[in-house]
Amino acid sequence: MTDKELVGHLRTVPDFPVKGILFWDVTTLFKDPESFSEVVDRICNIYKDKGITKVAGIESRGFIAGAAVADRLGAGFVPIRKPGKLPAETVSASYDKEYGKDTIEIHADAIGPDDVVLIHDDLLATGGTAIAAVELARKFNPRKVYVNFIIDLKEFDMLDKIPAESTSLLSL
Amino acid sequence: MTDKELVGHLRTVPDFPVKGILFWDVTTLFKDPESFSEVVDRICNIYKDKGITKVAGIESRGFIAGAAVADRLGAGFVPIRKPGKLPAETVSASYDKEYGKDTIEIHADAIGPDDVVLIHDDLLATGGTAIAAVELARKFNPRKVYVNFIIDLKEFDMLDKIPAESTSLLSL
Repeated sequence: MTDKELVGHLRTVPDFPVKGILFWDVTTLFKDPESFSEVVDRICNIYKDKGITKVAGIESRGFIAGAAVADRLGAGFVPIRKPGKLPAETVSASYDKEYGKDTIEIHADAIGPDDVVLIHDDLLATGGTAIAAVELARKFNPRKVYVNFIIDLKEFDMLDKIPAESTSLLSL
Repeated sequence: MTDKELVGHLRTVPDFPVKGILFWDVTTLFKDPESFSEVVDRICNIYKDKGITKVAGIESRGFIAGAAVADRLGAGFVPIRKPGKLPAETVSASYDKEYGKDTIEIHADAIGPDDVVLIHDDLLATGGTAIAAVELARKFNPRKVYVNFIIDLKEFDMLDKIPAESTSLLSL
């Protein structure tokens, strides 16, 4: 499948979640077996020789391709969640948003020093969550942290500013 | 892996999300490559000859094994979400909770009449969400709707009361 065909499976929704935002909707890509499989293929092709032991998906769109990649790579899957969602002891990281702060959490026993972690999310825009996710994953002192997105938005130009080796399948 | 070994990968957390609830935490099962793979193997073994074309995972723990199953079965993945999370036009179903109502949504273009749908969630307790999910999926007039859980709780005894062919990997 070409990049153009893959992009053809995405949908843009104006003014979501708030007025002025053009939202890139990956659900149309996931609902089609060919494009969903293509996304998982592409991510696995990038990381298949990196020794990934944990895929950490960012709540909650990052759970979808992230879990399929974990399954194919023979890795475990770790959810990165908003506060109050994980039931046991957590480690957290906070980051500034336009108004106030947001926090993300990982279970305190979810990552160990022998792990090679692939953080995954569907989309990279301003990068606040992704940068906090890298900081959070590094609190566990894993061997290495990689980051992958399905889409990065060129207008924000943040892919090179994530403080870990990062890849994106589609720059839009 | 035996049932007992699989159960050994689960964790119970008392008083989560509220006092008096013993929460069955599947994150410890997902973080381990062997037990995560075992769960996906078992679900795929049940449904591999059913012609599943869409796996519909219930937000958000149902996204994890659900997406891996969709990938392995060559099906698309469809998220069932809480109101306000899906960006485009949705179809919804509501159900009664102890206090008030809850609503779940699927994108209006996510399921078609040729689809065979497997609804997936991590855990079946009172069944409110799962029953609403079956009702919601049937609004799309698919060929068939199946339902799968990783765990069903015997104290509620709801597996036979879900109005669709339903399976669970572990009755606890």
